[in-house]
Amino acid sequence: MTKIIPVIMSGGAGSRLWPLSRRAVPKQLLPLVTEKTMVQETALRFDGDMFADPVFICNRLHVEAIDAQMSEIDRKVGAFIVEPVGRNTAPCAVVAAVHGADADGALVMLVPADHHVTDVAAFQAAVARALPIAQDGYLVTFGIKPDGPETGYGYIAQGKALGDGAFKVDAFEEKPDLPTAKSYLADGGYAWNAGIFLFRPDDFLSEAHTYAPEIAKQAKAALKAASRDGNVIHLDADKFAACPSESIDYAIMEHTQKAAVVPCSIGWNDIGSYLSLQAALAEIDSDDDQNALAGAVMTVSSDNCLVQTDGMPVSIVGVSNVGVIVHEGEILVVGLDQAQDVKKVVNRLKEGGEKDRL
Amino acid sequence: MTKIIPVIMSGGAGSRLWPLSRRAVPKQLLPLVTEKTMVQETALRFDGDMFADPVFICNRLHVEAIDAQMSEIDRKVGAFIVEPVGRNTAPCAVVAAVHGADADGALVMLVPADHHVTDVAAFQAAVARALPIAQDGYLVTFGIKPDGPETGYGYIAQGKALGDGAFKVDAFEEKPDLPTAKSYLADGGYAWNAGIFLFRPDDFLSEAHTYAPEIAKQAKAALKAASRDGNVIHLDADKFAACPSESIDYAIMEHTQKAAVVPCSIGWNDIGSYLSLQAALAEIDSDDDQNALAGAVMTVSSDNCLVQTDGMPVSIVGVSNVGVIVHEGEILVVGLDQAQDVKKVVNRLKEGGEKDRL
Repeated sequence: MTKIIPVIMSGGAGSRLWPLSRRAVPKQLLPLVTEKTMVQETALRFDGDMFADPVFICNRLHVEAIDAQMSEIDRKVGAFIVEPVGRNTAPCAVVAAVHGADADGALVMLVPADHHVTDVAAFQAAVARALPIAQDGYLVTFGIKPDGPETGYGYIAQGKALGDGAFKVDAFEEKPDLPTAKSYLADGGYAWNAGIFLFRPDDFLSEAHTYAPEIAKQAKAALKAASRDGNVIHLDADKFAACPSESIDYAIMEHTQKAAVVPCSIGWNDIGSYLSLQAALAEIDSDDDQNALAGAVMTVSSDNCLVQTDGMPVSIVGVSNVGVIVHEGEILVVGLDQAQDVKKVVNRLKEGGEKDRL
Repeated sequence: MTKIIPVIMSGGAGSRLWPLSRRAVPKQLLPLVTEKTMVQETALRFDGDMFADPVFICNRLHVEAIDAQMSEIDRKVGAFIVEPVGRNTAPCAVVAAVHGADADGALVMLVPADHHVTDVAAFQAAVARALPIAQDGYLVTFGIKPDGPETGYGYIAQGKALGDGAFKVDAFEEKPDLPTAKSYLADGGYAWNAGIFLFRPDDFLSEAHTYAPEIAKQAKAALKAASRDGNVIHLDADKFAACPSESIDYAIMEHTQKAAVVPCSIGWNDIGSYLSLQAALAEIDSDDDQNALAGAVMTVSSDNCLVQTDGMPVSIVGVSNVGVIVHEGEILVVGLDQAQDVKKVVNRLKEGGEKDRL
């Protein structure tokens, strides 16, 4: 049976979720939505004979924590591939493909470590649908069927059918404005680009060499020159740093003629900001006013808020769509409609050299 | 020369300014607007030969702190009159008048301890204008000339002139709706009711006996049966508790034919909630976005906020008209337009028996 190697990209800093997400413990290592951490939830999504042990691509700082978290849920780790620096997803994908090519006949499934999926059965069914398409040589991306005219995601336009619930990709569309998002929704032939991929290593690498030769060359060299310590593979720092920092979409998927999409409804949320975290948590457990609360919190005349405190009690009065996070000595108050801007706090702390607050 | 005895009502709990204002240290004992506390600022407003040493009506818990704060600014205290329970302003006024009647020929000026006044010279000039009117037997109230159609205050309608910048009171008007407030502003003959009074003790007591006989009787008895300890007068608990709890306006001023008003512009703010505190502080010192900040605070895309922290750093992102108060182990986040509702937090803490948080 063909195995799928899940390669879980865990290199992100999650700075839009500061101060929960910190340098030492970024968001994917936290139990943000359930009682399990996001890497645990992600690994558990790959349950069953179809999947090999997961591989993690991550920062050196987090190897030990991920290893411990996998032990907690009784999961073996295939390998840790340590990124000496972050270089976006295209170099990751090349490294994953080269690493996967060593396992005879296996496919590689590339997934972010920090997405929330409520319907794991639907996810696995989508993977099963994608499998024959990937074996046929397509680079398959998973498209999330939109449940609203979302302007925060890129969209994938479906082309001609490739069998059961799979399509050629017609185009990758940038984040749309609202009228465009509405037209996509009405059309029905568009799905959100979730950044989840399934491919045969050889097919992917051949496309990478064609459309992103420098990335393909340097990433491959970084893996070849890697130092190994048990199941931990340290990519060569100079060679990996020499990779252009580009996303897999931008570098490869938007150019290849072999892109396919499998649309699916899996209860997906990218937990990209406090806005999406509030939405995910409110769906699971909220008060009558759609407030998602954790810790010692009192609310008065407030709705659609997210309040989490690890100690000091928080009282909120007369606020809507506001996040209040009290975590390890930091207090953040954020208007959820501008939740993207939390990143700016992190940037200013970096500029100010306030490392202990990151 | 006729002396004026300032009687400073310091009995309030300031629960709308929780968690800054606490049972042990309520708002009037805090340096909310300037580096001096509100009772210090209030006492310093009565500088000059015209005024006797101030008398404080307050809770037993606060005598020592007020005494210490007066020493800090080199002011002698005329007396402390200790309220065993709060009974609103009418019983206070009677006690103040009876106490003041002992000082031959002196007038009594009754003022709240927690108002902010930026133009002390204008305030003293208004007192000087009020003095002959009060000596003529009027109960003088000070009306603040409105600078906007404020709906949060009661209004005083001016009647016929009583000489230089003083008028008979035509009516006390309840807090108006916005159209009514606008019509008052356009009319020009209305002023905000600031709850500041000047009167001869005998005239006031005669009106009190006529319009609020039970209050007059019980409050007088409470003072007569008081125990004295140096300059601290402890009102008799049972007798004071027997006073109906009513405001001086409701019990006396709205009924007497002797009410006069002296309109004035003194830079007045009652610091009644975080909304008015934000306004007062932003006027003194704010950033380019009208944020009033104290302590370790970072702001991103935020305006018209009030943020104060006594320790843990606070970052605010994408919020407007929001107050964030971190004070002695409590965090409050309040939409300033609903700042009145902070009281509800205090009420719930009381109901929950959480005394240590009050």
